[in-house]
Amino acid sequence: MNYTSCDKGYIIRLSTGENIIDTLTKFCEEKNIHSGVFNGIGAIDNPELGYYYLDRKEYKWQKIEKMLEIVSLTGNISLVENKPFLHVHAVVSDDEFATYGGHLKEGKVGASCEIYLTNFGIDIEREFDEETGLKLLSCLS
Amino acid sequence: MNYTSCDKGYIIRLSTGENIIDTLTKFCEEKNIHSGVFNGIGAIDNPELGYYYLDRKEYKWQKIEKMLEIVSLTGNISLVENKPFLHVHAVVSDDEFATYGGHLKEGKVGASCEIYLTNFGIDIEREFDEETGLKLLSCLS
Amino acid sequence: MNYTSCDKGYIIRLSTGENIIDTLTKFCEEKNIHSGVFNGIGAIDNPELGYYYLDRKEYKWQKIEKMLEIVSLTGNISLVENKPFLHVHAVVSDDEFATYGGHLKEGKVGASCEIYLTNFGIDIEREFDEETGLKLLSCLS
Repeated sequence: MNYTSCDKGYIIRLSTGENIIDTLTKFCEEKNIHSGVFNGIGAIDNPELGYYYLDRKEYKWQKIEKMLEIVSLTGNISLVENKPFLHVHAVVSDDEFATYGGHLKEGKVGASCEIYLTNFGIDIEREFDEETGLKLLSCLS
Repeated sequence: MNYTSCDKGYIIRLSTGENIIDTLTKFCEEKNIHSGVFNGIGAIDNPELGYYYLDRKEYKWQKIEKMLEIVSLTGNISLVENKPFLHVHAVVSDDEFATYGGHLKEGKVGASCEIYLTNFGIDIEREFDEETGLKLLSCLS
Repeated sequence: MNYTSCDKGYIIRLSTGENIIDTLTKFCEEKNIHSGVFNGIGAIDNPELGYYYLDRKEYKWQKIEKMLEIVSLTGNISLVENKPFLHVHAVVSDDEFATYGGHLKEGKVGASCEIYLTNFGIDIEREFDEETGLKLLSCLS
């Protein structure tokens, strides 16, 4: 990966073969990013997508076993047990321009992945919520 | 809903069952947000999507009667008759990872919906345009 | 097109019939925007989408010959040979709410296209990369 600082954040370019979620999580650890958001485009190989069944409180996971364009990557950063945690959803498209979407568990970068990440510079935590079975943002108003 | 201030805006977490558009519109009214943009991810139950036929100047509306992941939510805020008005498009995905897209009229939050909203702090108005039959942003260059 | 300055960037409204990529590229040239990101929603007629085969190092291009909603438009700006260059991916949807995605080569605005563009105010370059066959962001860490 390569990056450069800009505005309140970073422009990041991930390289072919890097794990997107893992690489970005490590970047947030190194830079002490405890909250923020990011958007990106690029390509991804073999992404694992999730759908959450709220009634059964469980995810269905599926790998899309293709090289795909990342047509939309949207994520946020918060702290879970004092470590940066990324929540990421993606829309990906294949060579017929058909799209798939879901919670992005992981995937390897194709040719490239270009991300703009804003660091809020504050602590935002995510905590387990009994009712939904998920770790939710604990934003205090 | 819960929120926290950050950078030039807010991180907002909407809760299960809240109407997304209505809740965000009321938030903008309370905070006197007269222009801005937002992005989000989460889950939505039973969203009503629209497609605009420019030639006939009318929307086709359809409810997607499922619980879906919000894989991309993009919107902007402007003033219509001095009140905050939200223009929102969404991509949602089901448990087969198939996606649907359109103008988001309304929908109830599933497990959660996490939004980052930037407040521009200026007045941007939206006015009816005869030619398209829509209220368009009146950005003056 | 019309626009107004806000925060670190611009709110831009493109008008019916304007070429999206071409108009935005000229805007960046006029404003001396050498790096930045943008997001948008709107409508697009007859977009040409691309999928990149990394193994053969070539794009497959296809026009989606319909008027479509732009449900997600994500792009970045960098310099190629000292001129602003836009890299843009899009998700578009038709009147059955079906979606298509890919690298957006070009397309004409439908009723409107509303974009928020952030100008980083620095120089970020994109250079040809032998391994992928693409011009990649040269972010130096």
